[in-house]
Amino acid sequence: MTTGIENSPPRENSRKIIALAGGVGGAKLALGLYKHLQSQKRSGELVIIGNTGDDLEYLGLQISPDLDTLMYTLAGRVNTANGWGLQDDTGNTLTMLGEYGQENWFWLGDQDFATHIVRTHLLSQGQRLTEVTEELRRRLAIDCQLLPMCDEPVRTLVETAEAGQLAFQEYFVKRRANDTVIGLAFEGAAEATISPEIRQALTDPAMIIFCPSNPYLSIRPILAVPGMPELLRSSAANLVVVSPIVGGQALKGPAAAIMSSLGQVETPSALGIAQVYAGFAQRFVLDTVDADQKAAIEALHFRVLVTNTVMKTDEDKVRLAQEILQEFS
Amino acid sequence: MTTGIENSPPRENSRKIIALAGGVGGAKLALGLYKHLQSQKRSGELVIIGNTGDDLEYLGLQISPDLDTLMYTLAGRVNTANGWGLQDDTGNTLTMLGEYGQENWFWLGDQDFATHIVRTHLLSQGQRLTEVTEELRRRLAIDCQLLPMCDEPVRTLVETAEAGQLAFQEYFVKRRANDTVIGLAFEGAAEATISPEIRQALTDPAMIIFCPSNPYLSIRPILAVPGMPELLRSSAANLVVVSPIVGGQALKGPAAAIMSSLGQVETPSALGIAQVYAGFAQRFVLDTVDADQKAAIEALHFRVLVTNTVMKTDEDKVRLAQEILQEFS
Repeated sequence: MTTGIENSPPRENSRKIIALAGGVGGAKLALGLYKHLQSQKRSGELVIIGNTGDDLEYLGLQISPDLDTLMYTLAGRVNTANGWGLQDDTGNTLTMLGEYGQENWFWLGDQDFATHIVRTHLLSQGQRLTEVTEELRRRLAIDCQLLPMCDEPVRTLVETAEAGQLAFQEYFVKRRANDTVIGLAFEGAAEATISPEIRQALTDPAMIIFCPSNPYLSIRPILAVPGMPELLRSSAANLVVVSPIVGGQALKGPAAAIMSSLGQVETPSALGIAQVYAGFAQRFVLDTVDADQKAAIEALHFRVLVTNTVMKTDEDKVRLAQEILQEFS
Repeated sequence: MTTGIENSPPRENSRKIIALAGGVGGAKLALGLYKHLQSQKRSGELVIIGNTGDDLEYLGLQISPDLDTLMYTLAGRVNTANGWGLQDDTGNTLTMLGEYGQENWFWLGDQDFATHIVRTHLLSQGQRLTEVTEELRRRLAIDCQLLPMCDEPVRTLVETAEAGQLAFQEYFVKRRANDTVIGLAFEGAAEATISPEIRQALTDPAMIIFCPSNPYLSIRPILAVPGMPELLRSSAANLVVVSPIVGGQALKGPAAAIMSSLGQVETPSALGIAQVYAGFAQRFVLDTVDADQKAAIEALHFRVLVTNTVMKTDEDKVRLAQEILQEFS
C-alpha cells in the first residue's frame, strides 16, 4: 500500500506544535489540532506525545492503549461511541481466548489485535516503540508525528484504599476506576530516557499543549520520564494547559475523584488543575462555565483563554484547536 | 469453563489406538475413530499423533496447521466447507494486518488467532508443544490425546523444479501446490526427539493406523523424528495403512502428483502407496474401486481390507473407523 505520505516529509525547519496527551480525552483535542493544521497543510508541524504508562502485556502481546486511541482517532478510524478501539470491530478473538480459559476483561477487537501483533513483532525484532509507532501511523496514513513518551517500559501503578496496589488497567478497566486512589507510582520511570525524536521535537517548539487529559494518570507518567519536565520548561514556547475539569466534573474518567482522594484540593475544579500546573505552565484554557475562576487562575500567573472547551463534534475540536493556536502563538 | 474432562482421565491401563495424521484428509478418519470410540466410552484409548512439519511462525505467532485442523475437527468446530479453520470464523485481524503491510496469504480467522496467541504465549513460558496442545484440546472438550510428533521445531522444506526450495506453506498455500516436487527435507528433524507422551502411548499399543494423509508431506515428517520408525515397527500391534489414493487420485491435495514427480511410481495408485509402506506396515485398507489391486498389494505381504474409504459424511467416517478396528484388532 502506498499512501504518498513517504513523499511529503514534515518540513524539518518549521517549529513544532507539541501536544501531550493520554487517551480518549486528550485525543479529542489532538484530532482538532491535526485537522486544523491539515487544512492548512501544516500537519507535519504537529507532534503528539502519548502516555505509555498504561501500557500492558497481554498473553505476550504489547498493548499501548493510549497510543492506539490517539492513532485510531487521528486516522479517523476510532469507535466514536467508545472513544477507543476501531470502529465496526468484532470481538471474536477475545471470545475464543475466553474459551481457552484466558482472562478477557480488557476488551480488544479483532482488527485491534492486528495492531498488537505487529507492534509485538516489530519490538521483538529490536525496533524501538517510537519506530514501531511511526510505522503503524504511516500505514494508517496519519501525517503528523505520534511519539510514545519514551521507548522503555514504564508502568503506572495505582495505590488504592480498597485493594492496595493495582496495575493501571486492573484499576481502570477491570475494577472500573471505582477504587479510591491514594497514590501513584511509575514503575520503570527512573530508567526511562528522552528519545532522540522527542528531543528533536522539543528543540525550539512553537507551543506545548497539555491536552485535556487526566493530569495524574495521563500527564504525570509523561513528566515522570527523567529530564522531561526540565526539557519542557527550558523551551521558550508557551506551555498551555487545557483544563480537563469543566464545571467541577471530569470531561471523561476519574480525574475529579482522584483530585480529591489524592488530597490536593477539597473541591475538584479548573482552579485545582491550574494549581497542579502552577509555576510550570503559563497559559490556561478555561471553559466558559468556569469563567468565575479566571481571576484566581490569573493570580497563579497564567494567561487565561476562556472559551467553550467541551468537544462534542469534530467542528468543536477544530475550533478549540484554532482558538488555542491563535491566542497563544 | 469446566468440561468435566479433568475428572475422567484416560484409563492408563488400556492399550492405545494410535492414529498418525496430517491435516484435512487424516482428520476425517481421526474423527471417525474418535466418534466411534466415544460412543463406546473408549475415547481415552485414542492417541492421535499429528504432523508438525508444516508448522510456521507468522509475525512471532507459532502456528501448527495440522494440529489445529485435527483439534478443530475433533471438537466439532471445524469449517466443514474448507476442512480446516473454525466454522463461522471472520477474517478481520488478517485484513487489518494487510493494512499494516504484512503478508496475509496464509488465511487465519479471528477465533483461530486466539489459538495461536495462546500457543505462542504458553510456549514462551517454557511449556512444551505437547503440553500446550494438551491444554488447548482440554479447553475444547476433546477427550482423546492429541500429540505433536515432537516438541522440537521441524520444518518441511519442499524442493521444486520451478522455484527451488520453498518453505512448506509457501509451496502449499501461497503457490497452491502447483510446483513440481522433486525433493523433500525436514529441517531440524535430526535434533528432534520422541516425547515422553509418545513413548508412553507407543508402549504396547493395540493398533497403529496411518490415516489417509499424504505419505510424503504428512507422514514422512513424523517418521523423520529419529527413532520413530523403529519405535512404530518394534510394536507388536498391527500397522494399518489407509490409502489416501483412490481410483488413482488423491482424496485431497497433491499426493498423486508428488508420487509421480518424486519418481517413485509411473502411475499414482493405491498399489504405489502400498509400495511406499511395504516391509514397514502389514495391513492395508483399499477402496472398493481399487479392488483389482488387492492381489498385487497382498503380494507385498499386506493383509488387505477392501471397503468404501471415501468419507463424505460423519457416518462414513465412523463406519470406516469401526471396520478397521474390527478387521485388524
